[in-house]
Amino acid sequence: MKDMIEQYRVTAEPYYRPVANEVEMFEAAYAAKMPVMLKGPTGCGKTRFVEHMAWKLGKPLVTVACNEDMTASDIVGRFLLDADGTRWQDGPLTFAARHGAICYLDEIVEARQDTTVVIHPLTDNRRVLPLEKKGELLRAHPDFHLVISYNPGYQSLMKDLKQSTKQRFGALDFNYPAHGVEVEIVAHESGIEAKDADKLVSIAERARNLKGHGLDEGISTRMLIHAGSLMAQGIPAVAACQMALVRPITDDPDMRDALDAAVSTYF
Amino acid sequence: MKDMIEQYRVTAEPYYRPVANEVEMFEAAYAAKMPVMLKGPTGCGKTRFVEHMAWKLGKPLVTVACNEDMTASDIVGRFLLDADGTRWQDGPLTFAARHGAICYLDEIVEARQDTTVVIHPLTDNRRVLPLEKKGELLRAHPDFHLVISYNPGYQSLMKDLKQSTKQRFGALDFNYPAHGVEVEIVAHESGIEAKDADKLVSIAERARNLKGHGLDEGISTRMLIHAGSLMAQGIPAVAACQMALVRPITDDPDMRDALDAAVSTYF
Amino acid sequence: MKDMIEQYRVTAEPYYRPVANEVEMFEAAYAAKMPVMLKGPTGCGKTRFVEHMAWKLGKPLVTVACNEDMTASDIVGRFLLDADGTRWQDGPLTFAARHGAICYLDEIVEARQDTTVVIHPLTDNRRVLPLEKKGELLRAHPDFHLVISYNPGYQSLMKDLKQSTKQRFGALDFNYPAHGVEVEIVAHESGIEAKDADKLVSIAERARNLKGHGLDEGISTRMLIHAGSLMAQGIPAVAACQMALVRPITDDPDMRDALDAAVSTYF
Amino acid sequence: MKDMIEQYRVTAEPYYRPVANEVEMFEAAYAAKMPVMLKGPTGCGKTRFVEHMAWKLGKPLVTVACNEDMTASDIVGRFLLDADGTRWQDGPLTFAARHGAICYLDEIVEARQDTTVVIHPLTDNRRVLPLEKKGELLRAHPDFHLVISYNPGYQSLMKDLKQSTKQRFGALDFNYPAHGVEVEIVAHESGIEAKDADKLVSIAERARNLKGHGLDEGISTRMLIHAGSLMAQGIPAVAACQMALVRPITDDPDMRDALDAAVSTYF
Amino acid sequence: MKDMIEQYRVTAEPYYRPVANEVEMFEAAYAAKMPVMLKGPTGCGKTRFVEHMAWKLGKPLVTVACNEDMTASDIVGRFLLDADGTRWQDGPLTFAARHGAICYLDEIVEARQDTTVVIHPLTDNRRVLPLEKKGELLRAHPDFHLVISYNPGYQSLMKDLKQSTKQRFGALDFNYPAHGVEVEIVAHESGIEAKDADKLVSIAERARNLKGHGLDEGISTRMLIHAGSLMAQGIPAVAACQMALVRPITDDPDMRDALDAAVSTYF
Amino acid sequence: MKDMIEQYRVTAEPYYRPVANEVEMFEAAYAAKMPVMLKGPTGCGKTRFVEHMAWKLGKPLVTVACNEDMTASDIVGRFLLDADGTRWQDGPLTFAARHGAICYLDEIVEARQDTTVVIHPLTDNRRVLPLEKKGELLRAHPDFHLVISYNPGYQSLMKDLKQSTKQRFGALDFNYPAHGVEVEIVAHESGIEAKDADKLVSIAERARNLKGHGLDEGISTRMLIHAGSLMAQGIPAVAACQMALVRPITDDPDMRDALDAAVSTYF
Repeated sequence: MKDMIEQYRVTAEPYYRPVANEVEMFEAAYAAKMPVMLKGPTGCGKTRFVEHMAWKLGKPLVTVACNEDMTASDIVGRFLLDADGTRWQDGPLTFAARHGAICYLDEIVEARQDTTVVIHPLTDNRRVLPLEKKGELLRAHPDFHLVISYNPGYQSLMKDLKQSTKQRFGALDFNYPAHGVEVEIVAHESGIEAKDADKLVSIAERARNLKGHGLDEGISTRMLIHAGSLMAQGIPAVAACQMALVRPITDDPDMRDALDAAVSTYF
Repeated sequence: MKDMIEQYRVTAEPYYRPVANEVEMFEAAYAAKMPVMLKGPTGCGKTRFVEHMAWKLGKPLVTVACNEDMTASDIVGRFLLDADGTRWQDGPLTFAARHGAICYLDEIVEARQDTTVVIHPLTDNRRVLPLEKKGELLRAHPDFHLVISYNPGYQSLMKDLKQSTKQRFGALDFNYPAHGVEVEIVAHESGIEAKDADKLVSIAERARNLKGHGLDEGISTRMLIHAGSLMAQGIPAVAACQMALVRPITDDPDMRDALDAAVSTYF
Repeated sequence: MKDMIEQYRVTAEPYYRPVANEVEMFEAAYAAKMPVMLKGPTGCGKTRFVEHMAWKLGKPLVTVACNEDMTASDIVGRFLLDADGTRWQDGPLTFAARHGAICYLDEIVEARQDTTVVIHPLTDNRRVLPLEKKGELLRAHPDFHLVISYNPGYQSLMKDLKQSTKQRFGALDFNYPAHGVEVEIVAHESGIEAKDADKLVSIAERARNLKGHGLDEGISTRMLIHAGSLMAQGIPAVAACQMALVRPITDDPDMRDALDAAVSTYF
Repeated sequence: MKDMIEQYRVTAEPYYRPVANEVEMFEAAYAAKMPVMLKGPTGCGKTRFVEHMAWKLGKPLVTVACNEDMTASDIVGRFLLDADGTRWQDGPLTFAARHGAICYLDEIVEARQDTTVVIHPLTDNRRVLPLEKKGELLRAHPDFHLVISYNPGYQSLMKDLKQSTKQRFGALDFNYPAHGVEVEIVAHESGIEAKDADKLVSIAERARNLKGHGLDEGISTRMLIHAGSLMAQGIPAVAACQMALVRPITDDPDMRDALDAAVSTYF
Repeated sequence: MKDMIEQYRVTAEPYYRPVANEVEMFEAAYAAKMPVMLKGPTGCGKTRFVEHMAWKLGKPLVTVACNEDMTASDIVGRFLLDADGTRWQDGPLTFAARHGAICYLDEIVEARQDTTVVIHPLTDNRRVLPLEKKGELLRAHPDFHLVISYNPGYQSLMKDLKQSTKQRFGALDFNYPAHGVEVEIVAHESGIEAKDADKLVSIAERARNLKGHGLDEGISTRMLIHAGSLMAQGIPAVAACQMALVRPITDDPDMRDALDAAVSTYF
Repeated sequence: MKDMIEQYRVTAEPYYRPVANEVEMFEAAYAAKMPVMLKGPTGCGKTRFVEHMAWKLGKPLVTVACNEDMTASDIVGRFLLDADGTRWQDGPLTFAARHGAICYLDEIVEARQDTTVVIHPLTDNRRVLPLEKKGELLRAHPDFHLVISYNPGYQSLMKDLKQSTKQRFGALDFNYPAHGVEVEIVAHESGIEAKDADKLVSIAERARNLKGHGLDEGISTRMLIHAGSLMAQGIPAVAACQMALVRPITDDPDMRDALDAAVSTYF
């Protein structure tokens, strides 16, 4: 089990370009054992930030992609049938709490309420996790830290965190980086030159203005890296942008024209 | 099993600052074997109060965070497959009733009705728990006591306790403490000075007036302790308040402005 | 198994104060093997009545608190995995039918339809229970008797007994006892003096007039016993009434004022 | 298994008073291997008729009370875990088809569609039942016969038999018997004198006119037998009628008055 | 397993009276390995046609009555627990694909979508069935053929085959046979004389004109055979028609009168 | 396990006629490890394209037909009970990621959200798949590639990919091929002459204009191949078109007339 936790250690420094005071705030929250909620649109770097902080703090990182079919047992653990009867197996949350990892519950609103309620006793001063089926009251490892992500643009009437959950977290806002920073990131990650990355970021900025006017979400930093990667493979810029930036996010002919026009402005 | 109950014993006195006659009323209810319902908003100290009473009465405390996916089996118990066939395992409610613990069902309205109905025979003069699957009629330990919590602000048409459940409990009201008491609590728990705690409480009081006018819940005592803890880590007060008080509870720009303004008034 | 039925025997005479001809009617129904349905509001003594009749007839009593997640298997029985493969375990209804107990299904409308349909062959002249999964056609013990309870105030469009179920039962109406009788019960059960019990009953009578005018149910006899028990512990009458009579059943400020006023009239 | 079928044999002649040509039609349908559907209100004698026919034809009778939680596996069968691995267990339908019993599916509309569809291959000229999980294609015993009951008054938009199911059955209509016949039945079954039975039948006839005008169903023959049985126990007629005829079917004060008035007219 | 497929072989020639070119079209589709969809109302001979074609082509026939509770596992297969651990058991579709049978999925729209999607890879040029749970990619036997039935009159907004499923099939229309052909069928199947069969067909033709005007479906050929069989048992024609043609399909008094009138016109 | 992957290898070159730059774009995406989404109507060649690319790149292909009952466990894997206890079995996605296959999730919108979320960590730079139940963090084989298909015409309000999923893919548009190309494909696949294939394509083009005017989808290339195959079996062209092109997709009499007219124009 000690060895298993090692596979969750972030061994190489993940590239991360800080935007504001998020690194210091996270470190203070970690020191104060205050759970952290990362808010922001998809593809703007929340996951990368957590990986970076796990590396910086030297702690293993256990990531869980939440979904509406996930039950409390999926993250807490369950009994498995073995040659000698049943054997308990820690779920990812229990595993992280027991061995002192950072546990990152990605898009937690997607999960069923039992998943969100199960974290409550880990998020107040008790820092315990009752494993009711196992009859164990697990006290969290001092290094354990809980991080969740949350996309406010998603938040519907049906799916929102309960106030009693929200209150247990300190929150950090995330958004797409400033122009210069984003150019730097795209160039670094895809291997294209800064001038091409600059054009891609400009296209994205135009598209982001269409959010709410026909687009559900803007073009994210991740998509720009995709386009850049295709260009680095020798694909012409326009074809790369069509495949990586335009076609994935809309099938509406007018919106496609608008986005294609933005592409032709720069390439 | 005798040893297992020990891990649920509250060994150190939990800090609790009484607000009214709640300690005496709870003691009388305990003596009269009358189940108790704690009513009040999230984060105002209900859980801490139960911990304090468990310590004061010298009884173990078994806490269950209720949720809508929780079944009666989750609290009563089930058969597990073992090397020698099936083995019964007490759920937390059964465990508490058998060994004379206080059982605290937190936010019971969240649970499915079978969970709330299953407590009925434990809450009248019979004080029994039929373990139908096991064929046992468990008579509760004389020390056993049942406590539930209930947030009236939550109570929707869909989710409310049945009258036949409510009637089985005596009820204690909880609310945020008076100004001076709350300053004392925040200072004690976060380690900041009273004058800073005083400012945090004042901010919270302003926010609580916005409840129902754009905020679902006010800023709780727990959140003030969070902000204080960040400040104790050296984070500037304004940044601490943003992370711990403002961003977790609202994404509405106007509401954020109003709360930020309240913060700047004091820091 | 013979021994197990003994734990369901009511050994001490349960206190019960008859109100009308209910004892004789129940005895005739028992002799005629006619299943009985008890109708009435929560907390008015239906459960106590069944316990009293079980004691009077000298039969064991198996009580099942019905709920909407209860399946037919929960009351009929199921196969459990054992060291030697599967083993059949009687559910409470089967157990009662096999060993000649009175089976009391409390609040049967709460259960799913399969639970209500499963009792049909036990309620006509066949008096059998097909254990389809076990391949057994259980013929009920001659002493077996089926009793169900039913709260007409609850009965919604979604949840009502089917006509084909209702027809199988003789019905007895229950309600809160007459003033003098209720005073007698409250004094006996809580240990307070008759003059205090009299005041508690008067408060309840006022509250019962509010049923349908802001209160879903009136204050029940059980709640009066709660208040009396707190008073017997030395709690002042007003505080006892607030905890046991007012706060459990309403959070509406006006309704609370009305009930508090009723309390102050008498104490 | 041969022995098990014996417990389903109707050994004593069940009392049945024919109303029309139903006995001859059933015998012809049995000879023609045409499945039979019995239509009519609850409590008018459909179940008794099937028992009588099973006795007359000398065939075992397997009765299944259908309900909305019943699955195809519940009637077809399933694998059970045994000391030597899994063991197939016939459900009641398979059991009846294999051993040549009459299988009576009571209130089949209540069941889920998979239950109704599973009978299709047994109801056409193939007379087979594919046990898909077992990999067996069971050919029905020549004596096997399928009977279902159906209450047209129930039939809602949501719950009705599919046309492709209805078509597979010949149908017999049932209703409450004519006055003289019903008097005869009630007197025979409850043991009261014909003149009292006559009064009970007259009360029922009044109530049946209220069907659709405040009553969902009329007073059935079964209920009259209940009232008669209480009278045979020495209960006064009015009290017996209240318990057995009035209170079970309505809580509406006006309707209760109307029914009580009908009772006082005769007793 | 080789032996098991034999029980699905159609050994005697099933009586089938061709209506148009359906036999030739089916043979060509079989030769071209093109899956076939049979469209038409219930009881018009689709099942009999498939049996006839299976007999004519000399292939075993595996029939599955689809229903809304049927899962993909029910037709593909699952692991069963055995004395030596788990053992895979082919479902009917897998069984048919592996051993070269015709697989007939009757009323496939009734099934859940996973059942309809699971057949996709068997219906294009790949002719494979991925048994994901078993880790096997089953290549269909060259003799395997897939046939589904579909009742367009049923087809609601909620339940329709997906276009991507429909496209994979060639379709054959079925309907009630022409007058003379139907007379021939009814006489042959029920054993009555042609002149009586002629009258029954005439009654059916009148009823079919009422489809959509108070009747959901007309009287099918199968029902006429039922009526004829009762007549062959000596039941008078009018009583036979009431039991087999009128009462099964309607409870509406006016519609019953109309149908009864049609019966009296001929008998 | 090594051997098992071999059964998923595409050994013979699948016939594929490129339409635009889709082959080059897919190769670049594969080299850049960018997941690919294929968009387009049913039956236009998406599946064939993936098979062709798998053959061209020399990688095994694991195809999963998604459906609304598919759970994350169905594609990730689960524990199976074995003679020696439980044994983990990779699902198709895990199997492909572990052994370096192309995994094709066909019609992914049909699947439940947990299936779509489970692919997230495989689609960013982490390229990992957390097997939470097994406690393994699988790092994808360098050859692994993820491809999904998506039919925009289907996309309803209820069922659409989440933005956070769409963003992770580059997208390629598919549609029915140009006239000459489609003729070539139909002739090649069905074995009929080009002049007959030409007529079939012309009929399809007429029908595709009716899409949205009474037809949900046009006649696909796959259906034309079906019609051609029947003709190659000697079936007259008109009968072949009725069975393969007209009857499968509509039951509306007017629409059938329109399509039949289109058929008679050419044959």
